[in-house]
Amino acid sequence: MERIAVFPGSFDPVTKGHESVVLRALPLFEKIIIAIGENSGKSSLFSLTQRMTWIKEVFQNHPGVEVSHYSGLTVDFCTQQKARYLIRGLRSQADFDFERTIALMNREMHPEIETVFLLAEPAFSAINSSIVREIYKNGGDIRPFIPDSMTL
Amino acid sequence: MERIAVFPGSFDPVTKGHESVVLRALPLFEKIIIAIGENSGKSSLFSLTQRMTWIKEVFQNHPGVEVSHYSGLTVDFCTQQKARYLIRGLRSQADFDFERTIALMNREMHPEIETVFLLAEPAFSAINSSIVREIYKNGGDIRPFIPDSMTL
Amino acid sequence: MERIAVFPGSFDPVTKGHESVVLRALPLFEKIIIAIGENSGKSSLFSLTQRMTWIKEVFQNHPGVEVSHYSGLTVDFCTQQKARYLIRGLRSQADFDFERTIALMNREMHPEIETVFLLAEPAFSAINSSIVREIYKNGGDIRPFIPDSMTL
Amino acid sequence: MERIAVFPGSFDPVTKGHESVVLRALPLFEKIIIAIGENSGKSSLFSLTQRMTWIKEVFQNHPGVEVSHYSGLTVDFCTQQKARYLIRGLRSQADFDFERTIALMNREMHPEIETVFLLAEPAFSAINSSIVREIYKNGGDIRPFIPDSMTL
Amino acid sequence: MERIAVFPGSFDPVTKGHESVVLRALPLFEKIIIAIGENSGKSSLFSLTQRMTWIKEVFQNHPGVEVSHYSGLTVDFCTQQKARYLIRGLRSQADFDFERTIALMNREMHPEIETVFLLAEPAFSAINSSIVREIYKNGGDIRPFIPDSMTL
Amino acid sequence: MERIAVFPGSFDPVTKGHESVVLRALPLFEKIIIAIGENSGKSSLFSLTQRMTWIKEVFQNHPGVEVSHYSGLTVDFCTQQKARYLIRGLRSQADFDFERTIALMNREMHPEIETVFLLAEPAFSAINSSIVREIYKNGGDIRPFIPDSMTL
Repeated sequence: MERIAVFPGSFDPVTKGHESVVLRALPLFEKIIIAIGENSGKSSLFSLTQRMTWIKEVFQNHPGVEVSHYSGLTVDFCTQQKARYLIRGLRSQADFDFERTIALMNREMHPEIETVFLLAEPAFSAINSSIVREIYKNGGDIRPFIPDSMTL
Repeated sequence: MERIAVFPGSFDPVTKGHESVVLRALPLFEKIIIAIGENSGKSSLFSLTQRMTWIKEVFQNHPGVEVSHYSGLTVDFCTQQKARYLIRGLRSQADFDFERTIALMNREMHPEIETVFLLAEPAFSAINSSIVREIYKNGGDIRPFIPDSMTL
Repeated sequence: MERIAVFPGSFDPVTKGHESVVLRALPLFEKIIIAIGENSGKSSLFSLTQRMTWIKEVFQNHPGVEVSHYSGLTVDFCTQQKARYLIRGLRSQADFDFERTIALMNREMHPEIETVFLLAEPAFSAINSSIVREIYKNGGDIRPFIPDSMTL
Repeated sequence: MERIAVFPGSFDPVTKGHESVVLRALPLFEKIIIAIGENSGKSSLFSLTQRMTWIKEVFQNHPGVEVSHYSGLTVDFCTQQKARYLIRGLRSQADFDFERTIALMNREMHPEIETVFLLAEPAFSAINSSIVREIYKNGGDIRPFIPDSMTL
Repeated sequence: MERIAVFPGSFDPVTKGHESVVLRALPLFEKIIIAIGENSGKSSLFSLTQRMTWIKEVFQNHPGVEVSHYSGLTVDFCTQQKARYLIRGLRSQADFDFERTIALMNREMHPEIETVFLLAEPAFSAINSSIVREIYKNGGDIRPFIPDSMTL
Repeated sequence: MERIAVFPGSFDPVTKGHESVVLRALPLFEKIIIAIGENSGKSSLFSLTQRMTWIKEVFQNHPGVEVSHYSGLTVDFCTQQKARYLIRGLRSQADFDFERTIALMNREMHPEIETVFLLAEPAFSAINSSIVREIYKNGGDIRPFIPDSMTL
């Protein structure tokens, strides 16, 4: 049975923290699907097309990485993709509390899907997409926080 | 003097976690008022009528439980109800930080009202109403997270 | 049925934080037994006799408070005392994590005993018995941290 | 080189917690600029003019304190003001996690600006501006939470 | 390349929480080595032989699980075993902080070894080996906390 | 009035995290005294002489840094040194909780001494002296965790 994992998020935009987690998870899985969740009630700063283009650019040399998007429940998307694993990065204790709740509610609904947690590089442990967006909107330089291979 | 407690919340919807906390608190009080706070600035997924109906259904065999609703400050509602106790459930450290701030600000305003904290069952410690709402809006099955006796 | 609670601890020494929690819990219970746990593997700074004398002094005007000591499991002591409640004070998130584990393991062993958590006064939320002992051993003045009615 | 610090926030309204942090930080700096950040996407309860008037009133006897406002990035405002230090108060673990992320992202953008953290008085550690606003909107008395010298 | 993982610990004794983490991790790896770390400075309640016997009993029907023991650094043991993965269970925010530090220091020493975190069942999230030992030493019944298949 | 700060600790051994905090704090103070606390009840891995030699080596090019040692209360040492400030580094939420308690108890005893908190570099946020000692005792290489200028 294939080891397929979904790495869900809004990736608005993808950060060095996301990149670090995916690269670390790659040896463990045959395929990782980076999946942009489209939440009807939540608007994004960057368009879906822009976000998908960036992620493809960052992982273009990694054939094990696919990019996709979905609406609805993350666990339903996993089932469609025959993915038994969800990948999440953990930065801090505050992250953990939220991620634990999501992971356990997902398990309650789909017990066969397991959430696997990895740590980003410590140097990237203080990168937060919503603050990256604030910096961008205020005209700051977000390049220290996004992957080097990404064309801003 | 009667031991009357208020268990405030938005109960949008009531969950197995709420049910567990109320049932555990019941032997300690003569009356527990489950009180739906109506916050003008915040819209709910389920109507007030629906939420009250559900709570009444869940606790119909517990004469010590009343269901009510209020607007304004929770501590003012307690005073009207001659309730000296507030009940809150704690699931995680993140919960605790928020609940501590609310409880201490309430105490500053009404020193005679004491907040009593109880733990939900561990199996229900990862149930979060806002994620339950997300699941519902996305067509998922929320029955694992709501009381068994509640008619969806 | 009587509402009897046990407030367990090492009380080495009793602090303003402990005093605040007991006084706040008193209206909720008919009797609170402050119970010094004697742990064979752990030595105390102050003798059991000294610690009991201090607690009796602090609560001498509160007939609802008893002072006792026990070895063995806290929940077994509760059963002997016909106490259905354990009282614990919470100061911080770090406290909460430890207290939650203890409370849930106690519940697993004795489901009929409920742990009730209260908050100390914020001004006393940073008083820690083990640091009080360090201050005492280093010749510092511990009076800011212990009850005013206690004879040092 | 002058030791100038910026204490940024929305101060909507200024609280006893803010006052306590500024008074404690004063001996360490030659000038502290209390700076109201104006965030285009976020509306405030009290007007900018009202918030500035209150802060000036609270610190009128402290010549080392200036009051200002800014839009854009906090670190850019620091650079304009030749301020090498940011001051932040810490109340709880939950605060810390958020403040750490902001401080480290600021450092990444402007490595010469250092964030210095101080603790408020414990009695003020449970004062939260957003809850103060809720109390105000619901007709409650917010005087226990705001500086004594402030004219409501 | 084989996916071999080490699940290190003192397992003094093995608990339902440990069992749950190993069973969840099994589909992800070809082999999981449950490895008892022998720390010269730390004495155990149960003998190494007893602890190994129990773990073998619990996982006797899982050919992908091996039991071993080691002294020295965990990452050195991984290298000897050609294991590229460390498995750790996370119960709470407090766990996370400690586990994060260990994992990042291990990564600094052996960057090719990745720590993978999984969540135990919520019902087992409050099981702590050191409290299990306290209960055992005080004559309490530890069966609710240890695997059902383990002969006490 | 001079701005003198004490940076207390056991420094057993000094780490890159300690070095980072001192270098960041230096512009804010006229003198920083790195002070090794000698706690009668606690034994160190490295001798006091060794630890002082290492710290002097690390900061030999920083005339604003002094190295000292003390027994007794940290705040009493500050008073002897005419130091009005204590410096502490914060790595994580777990750190914060402990540091907050110490800082507030110190303030209760000596209200004129203020504790100032700084963040270490994120890359060093997972360095913990007690784990460094474990690695050393098990024959591991601790150079990734200690200052580059330190002769092991």
